[in-house]
Amino acid sequence: MIWDEEYDVVVVGSGFAGLAAAIEAKQAGASVIVLEKMRIPGGNSAISGGLVAVAGSPLQQREGIEDSPELLFADMLTAGMDLNHPELARLVAEQSPEILQWTQAFLGVKYSENLNYLGGHSVARTYVTANGTGSGIIQPMLAKCRELEIPVQMKTLLCALLKDENGRVEGVELCCDYLFPNKDSGRLQRVRARRGVVLACGGFGRDVEFRMTQDPRLNEKIETTNQLGATADALVVALQAGATPVHLSWIQMGPWASSDEKGWGVGSMFTMLAGFPYGIMVDAKTGKRFVNEGSDRRLRTDAMLTKDRIPVAIVDSEGVKNATTLENCLKRGVVKAFDSIEGLADFNQIPLTALKETLERYHLSLEHGRDAEFGKPLAADLKPIEHPPFYSIRLLPKVHHCMGGVQINSRAQVIGIADHQPIAGLYAAGEITGGVHGASRLGSTAIVDCLVFGRIAGRSAAADS
Amino acid sequence: MIWDEEYDVVVVGSGFAGLAAAIEAKQAGASVIVLEKMRIPGGNSAISGGLVAVAGSPLQQREGIEDSPELLFADMLTAGMDLNHPELARLVAEQSPEILQWTQAFLGVKYSENLNYLGGHSVARTYVTANGTGSGIIQPMLAKCRELEIPVQMKTLLCALLKDENGRVEGVELCCDYLFPNKDSGRLQRVRARRGVVLACGGFGRDVEFRMTQDPRLNEKIETTNQLGATADALVVALQAGATPVHLSWIQMGPWASSDEKGWGVGSMFTMLAGFPYGIMVDAKTGKRFVNEGSDRRLRTDAMLTKDRIPVAIVDSEGVKNATTLENCLKRGVVKAFDSIEGLADFNQIPLTALKETLERYHLSLEHGRDAEFGKPLAADLKPIEHPPFYSIRLLPKVHHCMGGVQINSRAQVIGIADHQPIAGLYAAGEITGGVHGASRLGSTAIVDCLVFGRIAGRSAAADS
Repeated sequence: MIWDEEYDVVVVGSGFAGLAAAIEAKQAGASVIVLEKMRIPGGNSAISGGLVAVAGSPLQQREGIEDSPELLFADMLTAGMDLNHPELARLVAEQSPEILQWTQAFLGVKYSENLNYLGGHSVARTYVTANGTGSGIIQPMLAKCRELEIPVQMKTLLCALLKDENGRVEGVELCCDYLFPNKDSGRLQRVRARRGVVLACGGFGRDVEFRMTQDPRLNEKIETTNQLGATADALVVALQAGATPVHLSWIQMGPWASSDEKGWGVGSMFTMLAGFPYGIMVDAKTGKRFVNEGSDRRLRTDAMLTKDRIPVAIVDSEGVKNATTLENCLKRGVVKAFDSIEGLADFNQIPLTALKETLERYHLSLEHGRDAEFGKPLAADLKPIEHPPFYSIRLLPKVHHCMGGVQINSRAQVIGIADHQPIAGLYAAGEITGGVHGASRLGSTAIVDCLVFGRIAGRSAAADS
Repeated sequence: MIWDEEYDVVVVGSGFAGLAAAIEAKQAGASVIVLEKMRIPGGNSAISGGLVAVAGSPLQQREGIEDSPELLFADMLTAGMDLNHPELARLVAEQSPEILQWTQAFLGVKYSENLNYLGGHSVARTYVTANGTGSGIIQPMLAKCRELEIPVQMKTLLCALLKDENGRVEGVELCCDYLFPNKDSGRLQRVRARRGVVLACGGFGRDVEFRMTQDPRLNEKIETTNQLGATADALVVALQAGATPVHLSWIQMGPWASSDEKGWGVGSMFTMLAGFPYGIMVDAKTGKRFVNEGSDRRLRTDAMLTKDRIPVAIVDSEGVKNATTLENCLKRGVVKAFDSIEGLADFNQIPLTALKETLERYHLSLEHGRDAEFGKPLAADLKPIEHPPFYSIRLLPKVHHCMGGVQINSRAQVIGIADHQPIAGLYAAGEITGGVHGASRLGSTAIVDCLVFGRIAGRSAAADS
């Protein structure tokens, strides 16, 4: 084999998992390159909400909230319908405090002082970056790569994994100067990976053809929060190299996305940090709640997609204190503000009497400290929705996260389908892997997943020989 | 390539799908061989219950039951949680009357005169073979193969699919004189398939390692109804050849299996044809019902596995008229008979008062024609459970059917993962394919699925060039 370039570790993908792998591998003494098929780095990571679940954190201590990795692990398995590969889910839960520490102390990431409650979690445990997006972590990671002199090469598509005569992955076949999505662009290059290749190429939420093989309902009409590059190319390359596919048909939709904008937008974070935790969701047709707004994403989405519902989240001025995107939401018309419930009901065409009854019942639940109807966990700081302005956001579930991908073990080695053994020289981390989250991923566990297994993959690859 | 033998069509697997493919291909003028890795033909098909769903049948006409392929199709999608590939599910529903006709007129299969109601179906539409097992269809199929001079070669393992320089499957690499499960046994052989290879190798329900990659709960302690050969070997070979995996993590457990015998046994058919349709299921701990006994297998199994329940089905002498295996069940102690409900409650350690209350409530439902509590469809011929002897069977969900497998299109061509196009020369049918049944297969649709797509695969391959 003639190689155009050689590195100890070749990392494919420049999101959370890829950059974490590159940084760890480099720190372990390996020469490293990061390859990215798009024109800018960061993938979905950069446009994500920057939400980080930490089981046992200083913010929780401040609020007097008891938490543990065991509890987060149990929450992940409940949402995951016990399909999770338990040894992987456990690592994410256990290392979540270390990830907070690593991003703060080592990368210099800044977080907001608010602690957030996200659906499916037993307690409030979610940090959010100071700028309210994943770029608040990606930018420091890219800076660290520059500091460590790790090249991050754009417009480079993974075409194949190259194996030696013993079946060990020894390098990658690439298309350089690739102009996504033009498959005819670019030129072929072969890069040797002396110690290992790390696949950190993300999910396939934007790949309509591929996702429809797994869930035929997710046709081109279904919106997604994902960036254009969230395609299955690299997953296919991994499967062609003998990786074991896991849970590919579990594709998550985000229940908090707005129907009044494209993609992830500004509304998703508003619903996640205000509408769901401090407000209620009703069906505009009936004025009634229909699901626990604090349940996991699968349960909420399934309820929202039932019987032509028109889901609207409602919250008041007391409930928007953590809503970092409120101003932008109002500016873009994604969130509407009203002086009265009457005005809100009128605009959203919600039957007023029914809506008032719903609010009364909800307020009674708050008094009793228990939502008998839907089982929403009622935090101590929840207040009646009665202080204008009132805010509403119209919701539309959008394809968000692929739970499925290639099987890995706790060393982030990719497991081969023929013998259930690691494929020598091949590692993976982040959304391209399957098993960590089972049937449904809990909000704010993706970044932890990516960073935990990215770091493990980088260390494992650097130690390989 | 040097070939040991040549045929037009090589069929791998000797169950319903494989034999159907072979018969059709031969009738279309192709030379055909059927290969089977075990020592006897028929796989899971031969030991199955011989249940055949027909939407629009003479027996339904006799009973005055209105049905249509549209209704069966809708039932399949409901059970499948809409993950079904609709064009495939539709073919099964539409061709079900033709399959009945084909098995009767062409193969000479004999069916019982009883029409059965199975869980998840909107109406009673299930035929059962006269001998109450799949062998009632497999034996006539094997006889037809002999008549058509189609060789069925045992102890032959598929090792690889061989492709020509254009990526067309041109033959198979085999291990002949293979002694399952000894991977070191046998000798290598290459057989050319001039027109096509049909994979009809069944599911992987007995393959603990493989099924645990998809559902880690299904460890070696979990029982299965499947025969020893239900392993993932051929599926892995297909995926290695670039087939698209679909729905692999949807593995069905049979809710009707007995905890007092191994495997499929004699109890499964008793529960399916008597216990569930004509009786009730209670939790022995509480004496209460806990699920619609007429719901689909996934819903029943999930309910049975909740909270350490001890599920017991109860039926009386009026409810066992269709129970072909009753005698064997009693002989083997899988079903117990009692003169009184008291005796049944005592033996099964069910709280008597609670059980009597449960029966009273159920009988009230029968009077009202509606099961308000659990929504069990109440057929007109249902009677109160009050005529001794009373029968009980203790239940244990067992791994039964793999909904997942390789993607096919409506011509039974295997779809490649790289380009979503058919892999030239490669066909598949039956349990090795995924998509027909989505998240959960309805009882008595497997045989139809296998025969419909087996026949299509055989015809498609024979017409290939």
